[in-house]
Amino acid sequence: MKTINIGLIGFGTIGSGLVRALKENKNLLAERTGLRFVIRRICDKDISSPREVKVKRGILTRNSEDILSDPRIDIVVELIGGTRPALDYILRALQNKKPVVTANKSLLAEKGEIIFNTAYKNKVKIGFEASVAGGIPIIRSLREGFVANRIKGLYGIINGTTNYILSQMSEKKISFNQALREAKEKGYAEKNSKLDISGIDSAHKLAILARFAFNSICPWKRIYREGIEKITPLDIEYGEELGYCLKLLAIAKLKNGGLELRVHPALLPTSHPLSSIQGAYNGIYLTGDLIGETLFYGKGAGANPTASSVIADIVSIAEGKGEALNWMKAVKNRKINDIGELRTKYYFRFMALDKPGVLARIAASLGKHGISILSCIQKEREKKVVPVVMLTHWAKGSSVQAVLKEIDRLSVIKEKTVVIRVEESE
Amino acid sequence: MKTINIGLIGFGTIGSGLVRALKENKNLLAERTGLRFVIRRICDKDISSPREVKVKRGILTRNSEDILSDPRIDIVVELIGGTRPALDYILRALQNKKPVVTANKSLLAEKGEIIFNTAYKNKVKIGFEASVAGGIPIIRSLREGFVANRIKGLYGIINGTTNYILSQMSEKKISFNQALREAKEKGYAEKNSKLDISGIDSAHKLAILARFAFNSICPWKRIYREGIEKITPLDIEYGEELGYCLKLLAIAKLKNGGLELRVHPALLPTSHPLSSIQGAYNGIYLTGDLIGETLFYGKGAGANPTASSVIADIVSIAEGKGEALNWMKAVKNRKINDIGELRTKYYFRFMALDKPGVLARIAASLGKHGISILSCIQKEREKKVVPVVMLTHWAKGSSVQAVLKEIDRLSVIKEKTVVIRVEESE
Repeated sequence: MKTINIGLIGFGTIGSGLVRALKENKNLLAERTGLRFVIRRICDKDISSPREVKVKRGILTRNSEDILSDPRIDIVVELIGGTRPALDYILRALQNKKPVVTANKSLLAEKGEIIFNTAYKNKVKIGFEASVAGGIPIIRSLREGFVANRIKGLYGIINGTTNYILSQMSEKKISFNQALREAKEKGYAEKNSKLDISGIDSAHKLAILARFAFNSICPWKRIYREGIEKITPLDIEYGEELGYCLKLLAIAKLKNGGLELRVHPALLPTSHPLSSIQGAYNGIYLTGDLIGETLFYGKGAGANPTASSVIADIVSIAEGKGEALNWMKAVKNRKINDIGELRTKYYFRFMALDKPGVLARIAASLGKHGISILSCIQKEREKKVVPVVMLTHWAKGSSVQAVLKEIDRLSVIKEKTVVIRVEESE
Repeated sequence: MKTINIGLIGFGTIGSGLVRALKENKNLLAERTGLRFVIRRICDKDISSPREVKVKRGILTRNSEDILSDPRIDIVVELIGGTRPALDYILRALQNKKPVVTANKSLLAEKGEIIFNTAYKNKVKIGFEASVAGGIPIIRSLREGFVANRIKGLYGIINGTTNYILSQMSEKKISFNQALREAKEKGYAEKNSKLDISGIDSAHKLAILARFAFNSICPWKRIYREGIEKITPLDIEYGEELGYCLKLLAIAKLKNGGLELRVHPALLPTSHPLSSIQGAYNGIYLTGDLIGETLFYGKGAGANPTASSVIADIVSIAEGKGEALNWMKAVKNRKINDIGELRTKYYFRFMALDKPGVLARIAASLGKHGISILSCIQKEREKKVVPVVMLTHWAKGSSVQAVLKEIDRLSVIKEKTVVIRVEESE
């Protein structure tokens, strides 16, 4: 039986999970592939702390060259995360004609161009299924299963932490801060959760998905982005009353020859397939000219789902099937559409003095900017300042900004108006 | 640019859809793969009727040998369906070392062994993504994306016709016959819909999925099967009242070393991800040791979704990636578990005389056979014979059969008792 020798860089939780999964399912993999997969060397800066799996002491090293320059290593797996030194390791492996498997989403979002170009020039394969949506085979599906489709749109819930927080806020009617605290206690959020809650992590993953969906360079910093920090249980509740569910969505569409790329909280009709994605799960909803609507659902993070995708990439490369990068020849640099030009429906929550004529003034201001109202909720409350909720027809982002500037200056408006996009099929 | 010459056998709706899709997305495919895909020859017994796409008259033939023996043909696509002559064409293509792509689920379910063995012996690739769940890349995901996973269970809604009928019955509270009639009118059911409504089509597809999930020969005729012909809107309504949704499920699990294989109507908790699969859509829910729970959702039939999967297979083969059949070396012949031994929860609807002591007699009979009642609905009705609905704890299939025999003989029971399995996580 042929042996595939793997060099693993990064021996943290994810790296240890890979070592364990390869050990536990060794026979299964041998049956399915006719190959034996062996972790020949593991590099980490810390080689003394105990791990959840036992490995022979001799295979541990602190010197990456023991992997990158060892002719016995067939495939390099990078699981340290972050930009440096991961980038140097990956480029060096590729230059040494060693195929690479990585789960590093921020690196691919930041430095994808140089990595893919280096792989392409050196005719070396690179696998990165684990970089987006954990165990869901979405890269493989986009690149292979849907290769014949013009992708029209892609809507993802691709950050488990924020989906968990929003699900808890909806279910328990608790504040963002309380839900975040609980998510940290239960291990669904990291101590420093800024990358997740600000939408940066989703933007990284969206940049990777959009690149393959639309074969275009997608600089992640140009993705319009709002986090979930300002979401309140009140808005979730009003949304639900109106028949919507609040989610942090990552959206990519090809429109008028340009790319529409955005990550923000959005109200989705409860009938939409993505509405049922609860807790720390991920979901990706795609439309293509041949497949129509399709949805993938699964665990978006964790050692096991990541190991599942990393091993799938290792097997593909070992079987000579991995990503051939043929598309690099035709990669485009599409323009990124201006968010101000984007038209969606909108949810507004105005905090207004409860006195006659207020509704009329708000409506007049909206009308002046060409924004028409679909529905409105104003309930009797025993307070001076009351929430006035409005759902609008399709409106341009720039008109909404203009109207907000105007309305938030009115003396009857007592707090900054809350604005949330409403996503519906066009 | 390298050209891949395709020989197409079968120029009906699906075949025409493939020709059109390859034509319309020619440039897209060239960009993504660096290859040009050309339909070089089309074989059909009818080469004179007009089709929705135009092709050069010269490429049409009624002689399959013009494709199977033509050295210029790189890949043979079989889209005629049925067992004969499709089997002969496929075997001949494989023996001539021509890779084959097929969407023929009944053929693969009936004759998979000989087809896969012939491909394996001749070292030729075979693609069959389109045979199950239309445009959903489920075969690819099972064979590649989840290659590292021990699959625990697979639950599929893999027949769009029956799911459409059941959705309509639930939504409009109409009878099976009326829903079937409407499905035929709208093109969701074929004139002869027996294969669909009896569960045979689902069993064919389940045999293919289970083969790859568990690397075992799966004779489709040994799959336990019930159709949806006897489902009434009354049972759907009671199920919904109890928090369940009625679906025709195809289920495969590895249990005690054997395969549990079954296709039957089942009540699923409305919180289950498959519950939200409505209309003619398909959904496949999988659990694996690394990925945990995962779901795929999409169109399960039609010319476009089928073309999507057929082209994906063509591209994979052209790129040298297709199914290598390495698993054939280790294919198993697992035992098929006896349906009588299977334990599930159950829904019963007894049609009983509305008089004192009836409930007690039913309950006594159930108790005697070790079946305990979870909940019961009996409503006041102004009729002599009333439905008594019971939901039970886990019970063995053989005990249920025994108890039914007993209860249906009682003088107070006026109709054959309705029994539906309830699927819940164990």
